[in-house]
Amino acid sequence: MKPTWLFHQPYQPYAYALTDTRARLVVAVERGAATTVNVHFGDRYVEALPERVSMEKSGNSHKLDYFTADVEVPTHRLKYAFEVVRELRDRSKESIWYGENAISLNPKSAGVFQLAYLANRDVYTTPEWAKKAVCYQIFPERFANGNPSLTPANSVDWESAPTPFAMFGGDLQGITDHLDYLFEEGVTLLYLTPIFKAGSNHKYDTEDYLEIDPQFGSKEDLHRLVENAHQRGIRIVLDAVFNHSGFQFGPFQDVIKRGQASPYWNWFFINGDKVDTEHVNYETFATRLRYMPKLNVANPEVEAYLLKVARYWIEEFDIDGWRLDVANEIDHVFWKRFRNTVKAAKADALIVGEVWHNSLPWLLGDEYDSVMNYVFCEAVHAFFVRRELSGREFAERITELLFMYPVQATNAMFNLLGSHDTERVLTLAGGDVNRVLQAMTFQFFYPGIPMVYYGDEVGMEGGADPDCRRGMVWETGRQNQTLREAMKVLASLKRSEPGLAAGSLHVVRADKQHLEMVREANGASRIHAAFNTGHTAWKLPELGEILFESFKGACANGRLKAGAAVIWKE
Amino acid sequence: MKPTWLFHQPYQPYAYALTDTRARLVVAVERGAATTVNVHFGDRYVEALPERVSMEKSGNSHKLDYFTADVEVPTHRLKYAFEVVRELRDRSKESIWYGENAISLNPKSAGVFQLAYLANRDVYTTPEWAKKAVCYQIFPERFANGNPSLTPANSVDWESAPTPFAMFGGDLQGITDHLDYLFEEGVTLLYLTPIFKAGSNHKYDTEDYLEIDPQFGSKEDLHRLVENAHQRGIRIVLDAVFNHSGFQFGPFQDVIKRGQASPYWNWFFINGDKVDTEHVNYETFATRLRYMPKLNVANPEVEAYLLKVARYWIEEFDIDGWRLDVANEIDHVFWKRFRNTVKAAKADALIVGEVWHNSLPWLLGDEYDSVMNYVFCEAVHAFFVRRELSGREFAERITELLFMYPVQATNAMFNLLGSHDTERVLTLAGGDVNRVLQAMTFQFFYPGIPMVYYGDEVGMEGGADPDCRRGMVWETGRQNQTLREAMKVLASLKRSEPGLAAGSLHVVRADKQHLEMVREANGASRIHAAFNTGHTAWKLPELGEILFESFKGACANGRLKAGAAVIWKE
Repeated sequence: MKPTWLFHQPYQPYAYALTDTRARLVVAVERGAATTVNVHFGDRYVEALPERVSMEKSGNSHKLDYFTADVEVPTHRLKYAFEVVRELRDRSKESIWYGENAISLNPKSAGVFQLAYLANRDVYTTPEWAKKAVCYQIFPERFANGNPSLTPANSVDWESAPTPFAMFGGDLQGITDHLDYLFEEGVTLLYLTPIFKAGSNHKYDTEDYLEIDPQFGSKEDLHRLVENAHQRGIRIVLDAVFNHSGFQFGPFQDVIKRGQASPYWNWFFINGDKVDTEHVNYETFATRLRYMPKLNVANPEVEAYLLKVARYWIEEFDIDGWRLDVANEIDHVFWKRFRNTVKAAKADALIVGEVWHNSLPWLLGDEYDSVMNYVFCEAVHAFFVRRELSGREFAERITELLFMYPVQATNAMFNLLGSHDTERVLTLAGGDVNRVLQAMTFQFFYPGIPMVYYGDEVGMEGGADPDCRRGMVWETGRQNQTLREAMKVLASLKRSEPGLAAGSLHVVRADKQHLEMVREANGASRIHAAFNTGHTAWKLPELGEILFESFKGACANGRLKAGAAVIWKE
Repeated sequence: MKPTWLFHQPYQPYAYALTDTRARLVVAVERGAATTVNVHFGDRYVEALPERVSMEKSGNSHKLDYFTADVEVPTHRLKYAFEVVRELRDRSKESIWYGENAISLNPKSAGVFQLAYLANRDVYTTPEWAKKAVCYQIFPERFANGNPSLTPANSVDWESAPTPFAMFGGDLQGITDHLDYLFEEGVTLLYLTPIFKAGSNHKYDTEDYLEIDPQFGSKEDLHRLVENAHQRGIRIVLDAVFNHSGFQFGPFQDVIKRGQASPYWNWFFINGDKVDTEHVNYETFATRLRYMPKLNVANPEVEAYLLKVARYWIEEFDIDGWRLDVANEIDHVFWKRFRNTVKAAKADALIVGEVWHNSLPWLLGDEYDSVMNYVFCEAVHAFFVRRELSGREFAERITELLFMYPVQATNAMFNLLGSHDTERVLTLAGGDVNRVLQAMTFQFFYPGIPMVYYGDEVGMEGGADPDCRRGMVWETGRQNQTLREAMKVLASLKRSEPGLAAGSLHVVRADKQHLEMVREANGASRIHAAFNTGHTAWKLPELGEILFESFKGACANGRLKAGAAVIWKE
């Protein structure tokens, strides 16, 4: 038998429950090797495999075609095997069977895979609202100064170039004041970087997890912000910095003062019998960052304290979820308890981890709903911004990403073009607004939550931290209105088109400089997007209703202009 | 670039913590494609990848070579990439780099994989004692009748052919009476199928989880059994049947009687407003098995009850772990809590799930230590017993099995040749003792816990259930002493040879009918095993000290006789 590369695992992301009676199965087949793939399945206790579904070819990476099928499992107990149909040289067809025992011409030898029981409590659910959400990330110190009385005395001018320690004077009232602006932009979710008491301008060095930083305002200000946001249908996610505290955090100060006599001694990881702040003899975030001592979350007292914090801001302030800083350096035991705590306090709260790499271990259903999708960000930059990839290569990267996680996570992912930790996308694009518009079009087209970093929608520029944290540009004359308008339209499509909210994504055509994709959901119109990264116009198929053009007249005479993007409804 | 198939995932079973400063990395490479594979690694926060380790080629499946390395991670934070060295046609060498972003000739484009933080609480630990353990499975109703006063009135003769409902009269005292026999056989762990109050002979239909079945004895009898076993260094694992109860289980009887008025109504899954035992309108084990109603473990009361049961027999009777019946049809949420409960009660208790297929989802560190390794059983039968596979194919299957789970689970696996749920191995072998001896040699050579089904060691035969559950043969004249002696020697090697307890396993040579393997551990002698399934003698390398021959004179003149197995120390 001529060998064919096949790949499947009877667990995520290749086999998993969608509900307690429905499972998604994915098999990867050497590219071009199969004409059809069928999955045969049935209840574990029934003889043979009575049911058969033809799988859908859902995309390909460089070397693999991905086939998927959702199967109904009324008894919750599933066994299955794949039948991969190949065409031989003489045009006759042959079926290879793929089960847990073998890849074989004989279905008996192949055996079956098993997803033994689709239990209700094991089903991964992410908030339904995430599918239509549009997120906006705010760095509060730099968004808007709504209460000058709070502004630190040593603040610099709003237009200054940021430095590591400069204060600009942004605050919570400033955000509340601009909720109408955000509403108009189509934002339905705000993610605020930390707002708790801390010494730095970024506040990732928490001094008190239960107090608002006085420079940002009061608890009353947060109440007002949340209330006013909710009135506009805007949810709010705060930043939980649980990997490390700040230097001024009470327990750390106590340990500095009292050494091993401190009841907080085991809240940190100190090598020695007292804290040596000069040589940094304690674990920290990153490498010997003296002002960010790592927290020992395995200490039950620390765990209880942090879970109390997680509950407190939900129960008392009605926030809608947490973004988790340095989430991949805290153990899985903690995150499982964190999820239980948060979901008990608010069932549809969103949990988003900061993980820059493959995040599957945190996205199996019992830890996060989502991560900051930097893997997405990097692929989008490589194709649309840096123009390093061909359309085909980008399509392959995107397909790999689609099959990297369970669909529930994909639908809740924070898909970003940049953040407070990266250069700004327009700067990376060398100021080429059309490239950013293409990237943004893709960002809103792709499943999950498009996350816009404050100011990107008005064309702010900025290099690496701290330059990416400039004061928000509010004078309309200095704002790029094309980007603003584009975001408005894209956000409104995300809300109004069911295909964009919940549909699957397929690549229709991809070549060196062009890409066409489609999203489709049951009972919804098919939504297409096309991108031309080349230097000449590209012939399109017959478009239905055009929903969005990245610039006026992007489509003309059945062609998509160079550098343009378009979205249409079939 | 000529493509090479490479496969890795930055999570189990390809990347995982062994301790909080040591990780195991595995990469699979298209067979024969690489001359060397190096892993380059370092702390996540350090520039580049300062460390390099040459990976060991640890085996191959039909299409893949597996390379492994253990790397030291003093800061707990790991990033890494693979350098796969290929020889080109002109004999020059080329390095392909494999990271999360790509497979590329350029290390920068390849990017890195990350195992972001090796946290202490996430490290998978299985009992250290498991590595040297030898397990013996007892079906108590059929092992020995130690207290005739308990024997049911309608019992049949001990030599009778089993029927689904016949009682033979075995009991706990019978087991206690034979502990010296078991000790002599080298047994260090007993697994008893259920002993709690139940109507059937197999007791998988529990009536009371907190009582010993009166036919088997009293709680005093269990105390005596455990105490006497422990005195001989023998641990005891009991069978937890938590997927379903028996028909006579108090709560189910109450539901039958009182319907929805019963406080236990939600302990089960009943479709309708009362129980219909005729049409079986409730979920059961398997398909409408009226006498085994499925338990709703997601009901907090049921969960609390079952966890109490799990604790009770450890705390009150000092048992050493649990084997979990139909473990794959209970949700993962329950099993995580179960592990916490059991390990809190006894830190080195063993948890063994009954899962017949790929069990990785339960073997990630926070559910089971081990499973009944039927995947192992099937491969061993196919090669040694049914002679369907070539030595090469078997070696490939075994290699795939070695890379299916984290090594911590592999070292604690219940490796069986048969159980109360299968035909007996000697029967499957058509009575050919040499085949069974070869299989048993392999069973004791392979990492993990060899599990011997009662009577297999004396050559008992038996077809499918109920025939595999005959009364134990105690008359030495009717016992196969060759098998008994073989087990004794193999069990003693398992205890005395560190290489057999903790070593890695590699295939040295494999062809159609022959197989040679080696196990090696740091600081221990290398232990080899060779198997000849052919019809003529097979030339061996120079043997060191012969530790075991499957029959007298198996090795002669530097050859291994047809049908023989041998173990030697280098």
